[in-house]
Amino acid sequence: MLGIFDSGIGGLTVVREILRRAPQTSFVYLGDTARAPYGNKSAETIGRYAVEDVAFLLAQGATDIVVACNTASSLALEALRQAYPQTRFFDVITPAVAALHELPQLKKIGVIGTRATIRSGTYEKRLKESLNNSSVQIFSVACPLFVPLVEENWLKRPETKRIARAYLQPLRQHQIDALVLGCTHYPLLEPVIRTSLQKRVQIIDSPSALVSQLEKEAPELLAVGHELRQEYFFTDTSPLTDQIAGRWLGRIIKSRHGELAG
Amino acid sequence: MLGIFDSGIGGLTVVREILRRAPQTSFVYLGDTARAPYGNKSAETIGRYAVEDVAFLLAQGATDIVVACNTASSLALEALRQAYPQTRFFDVITPAVAALHELPQLKKIGVIGTRATIRSGTYEKRLKESLNNSSVQIFSVACPLFVPLVEENWLKRPETKRIARAYLQPLRQHQIDALVLGCTHYPLLEPVIRTSLQKRVQIIDSPSALVSQLEKEAPELLAVGHELRQEYFFTDTSPLTDQIAGRWLGRIIKSRHGELAG
Repeated sequence: MLGIFDSGIGGLTVVREILRRAPQTSFVYLGDTARAPYGNKSAETIGRYAVEDVAFLLAQGATDIVVACNTASSLALEALRQAYPQTRFFDVITPAVAALHELPQLKKIGVIGTRATIRSGTYEKRLKESLNNSSVQIFSVACPLFVPLVEENWLKRPETKRIARAYLQPLRQHQIDALVLGCTHYPLLEPVIRTSLQKRVQIIDSPSALVSQLEKEAPELLAVGHELRQEYFFTDTSPLTDQIAGRWLGRIIKSRHGELAG
Repeated sequence: MLGIFDSGIGGLTVVREILRRAPQTSFVYLGDTARAPYGNKSAETIGRYAVEDVAFLLAQGATDIVVACNTASSLALEALRQAYPQTRFFDVITPAVAALHELPQLKKIGVIGTRATIRSGTYEKRLKESLNNSSVQIFSVACPLFVPLVEENWLKRPETKRIARAYLQPLRQHQIDALVLGCTHYPLLEPVIRTSLQKRVQIIDSPSALVSQLEKEAPELLAVGHELRQEYFFTDTSPLTDQIAGRWLGRIIKSRHGELAG
């Protein structure tokens, strides 16, 4: 069974994509809302939190883990593999890089994410390894206000459009060919992001790339099991969380409190 | 010696005010950046965090505690007094309410803060008790994006002005007489907040009201001790934190890592 975690509710965009394409998948989701967001925190803190999050999911019976958070995928994978050498991890960066690899004639790629993700340089490093092409240029921009804007549900407000235009201005100027949405919150801002860039820019979002990878590499995890289990845990529960989560997922959810062994 | 805590760097506006008016004050500051922000979290979580924060400050030798965070002042004071019945606590709400009490002819008061602070209703309750005047109307507005805007250091950007105008529009419409900045981050946005409201609106900020209260009720804490100690701890340290903190305080600070007993 899949265990899926994120710092908060952003990883629900991964759940949404799973439910859209394989609605009978069993999973347990953990959002670490009591310590969210991870995006401005240090690698050491993020690594420690991720290890605790996975301990919770394994105790719930998860066998394979989706790191549905770009910040943790950038900074915590090594810590996770060391702590749980028997467990298979799926991160959100690998499939996004693979999806880019399939686009033809890329010259300039933009990457946006949290401050911690961008500072880690993980996308640049992984893209350069994968493309193996020194003529491709990569432009990275941290967009720290995008997560709070999504959590405020200001998805299409004029203020959000202005902020998007300001953040993405350098990418527009460099005339990028493709943009990686390097944060699981960002697919919800895709319409606003799209209008801030040239029309021809191809947008790669990690939830959809990740589910494609799961379909290919681990179809058994998306298959119908003998008992359907879809559970949501948050380390800090509030009616607002269920409300936002429900709106994103298009269904009513009733989450439970997840107590981490600190 | 004073112990001062906040969820992150916002409480440094209290430190700034102390340094301005009583520069020889000894204190230990703790910013719980590893779990910041508190403003969208539940009362239970905030209470638990505050109790852990104070344990750290007491272990550092603090004798009196400033709760330099409106969210914790709204939601965690009872938990703190129960956990530490011998300790004197100064919160940021009491002095703001007292300062309002001294303004003449108030009819309409606006209060802005984080979602958790506004949802708690603490300001409304305390103001109504204090003013004891049923003809005074109170209008509360949560401004969840203000904290991330401050942490992004977007203090005077056009985007920030637009967001401020959008949040404060109901207060402008109600023609409030005074506004309480119910979050220790907000004094940094005061110029933008001021231009979003009618000119005659009187603005009360809690850091300055709090230091006035300390001068009156606990001058010994602000007096010159035999050894000056001014230390900054953060539960998640990063060069960026020191940089932002230094810019706000107008001095170079070198913070240390604060490890909480979880």
